[in-house]
Amino acid sequence: MPLSALLDMPGVNPPEAATHGYVFNHTMIRVKDLTRSLDFYTRVLGFTPVHRQDFAEAAFTIVYLVLAADRAIIPDNDAERLRWVLGQPGVLELTHNHGTEHDAEFQYHNGNAEPRGFGHLCVSVPDVQQACARFEAMGVPFQKRLTDGRMKHIAFIRDPDGYWIEILQPAPFIG
Amino acid sequence: MPLSALLDMPGVNPPEAATHGYVFNHTMIRVKDLTRSLDFYTRVLGFTPVHRQDFAEAAFTIVYLVLAADRAIIPDNDAERLRWVLGQPGVLELTHNHGTEHDAEFQYHNGNAEPRGFGHLCVSVPDVQQACARFEAMGVPFQKRLTDGRMKHIAFIRDPDGYWIEILQPAPFIG
Repeated sequence: MPLSALLDMPGVNPPEAATHGYVFNHTMIRVKDLTRSLDFYTRVLGFTPVHRQDFAEAAFTIVYLVLAADRAIIPDNDAERLRWVLGQPGVLELTHNHGTEHDAEFQYHNGNAEPRGFGHLCVSVPDVQQACARFEAMGVPFQKRLTDGRMKHIAFIRDPDGYWIEILQPAPFIG
Repeated sequence: MPLSALLDMPGVNPPEAATHGYVFNHTMIRVKDLTRSLDFYTRVLGFTPVHRQDFAEAAFTIVYLVLAADRAIIPDNDAERLRWVLGQPGVLELTHNHGTEHDAEFQYHNGNAEPRGFGHLCVSVPDVQQACARFEAMGVPFQKRLTDGRMKHIAFIRDPDGYWIEILQPAPFIG
C-alpha cells in the first residue's frame, strides 16, 4: 500500500510536534529463569546486556539487552550507558521475579493461546536461510520452520519461556 | 552495574559472528479495533504507519508503525519501504483479526493479570513531566502516574486494548 494511502487510513493522524523525540524504546517480557534467558538471548540471538537493576524488597530483577551492531558504541560509564540505552529503539527488557526458576510447575504465558494478546518479538537477519540452519544446528525449538505453511519467507523460533520470535530477512514479502 | 560485570553474569555469552546484522525489529500485539489503535498510536504517541498487509482468507490485517524522527527518511517506494522497515529497530506491529471490533464483549489480555507473561512497551520521551501533562490533557488513561508509588520518574499509560506503555525520560534512574 502506498505511503499516501497508509497516511489516509481511518484513525491515522499526523504526528504532533509534542511527540518529537519520542522513541519506542523497549519491550518487556517476564522470564522464569534469568540465566537460561540470558544464555538464549546472548548466545542464540547476539544480544548484549547493558543494564541490570535488582529490586531486593520486591524480589525482582530487570535486565536491558540490545542487539548492538558494534559493542564499541556502548558507553562504559554506568550513568551514561543507562541514559544511552533509554534513548535507543529496539531494547529488550527481561523481568525476573526471584524464585520462579525453582518451581518446576511455573510457566509464563506467551500470549498466543487464550487469553491472547501479545504475539511475538521479531529479529530480522541478513540471511534467513543461514540463520534458521544455525538455529537448527543449535537445537533451538521452532514454532514454524521456513518450510511450514504458506509463508516460506518467515520462521518462528521459541525462547526458553515459549515466547515466539519471528525470524525474517529485510526483503519485500513474496507472497 | 559496570558493563564488565554485566558481561560476566551467569548465562551471558559474547555475540557469535553469525549474529552480526541481527536487528530486534518489531514487537507484535493484537488489537481489537484497528482504527481506534491507529488513532492512539499516531495521535498520542506520534507513530507513522509504514506498511499494511491484508490477509483476506485468514481475515486479519497487519500494520507496521515507526516513531520516525524525520518522516523524510521513510522511503516512498513500497518495496523499498518494506525492506527499510524490516531492517529497523523499534517497529510496532499491530495485528487486527477482522470483526473483533464489533463484539462488545471481546477483549485482549494485556499480560499483567494471570496468566502473566508480556509486560509492557516503553516510549522514552525528552521530558517526562511534559509528556504526562499532555497525556492528561488528552484524556489518556494512566496505569501509574508519576506521583503514584515510589518510582516517581516513570509513568504507565494504557493503550485502547489496555496494554501498558511505560513513559520515561532517558536519564539515570534516581531511586
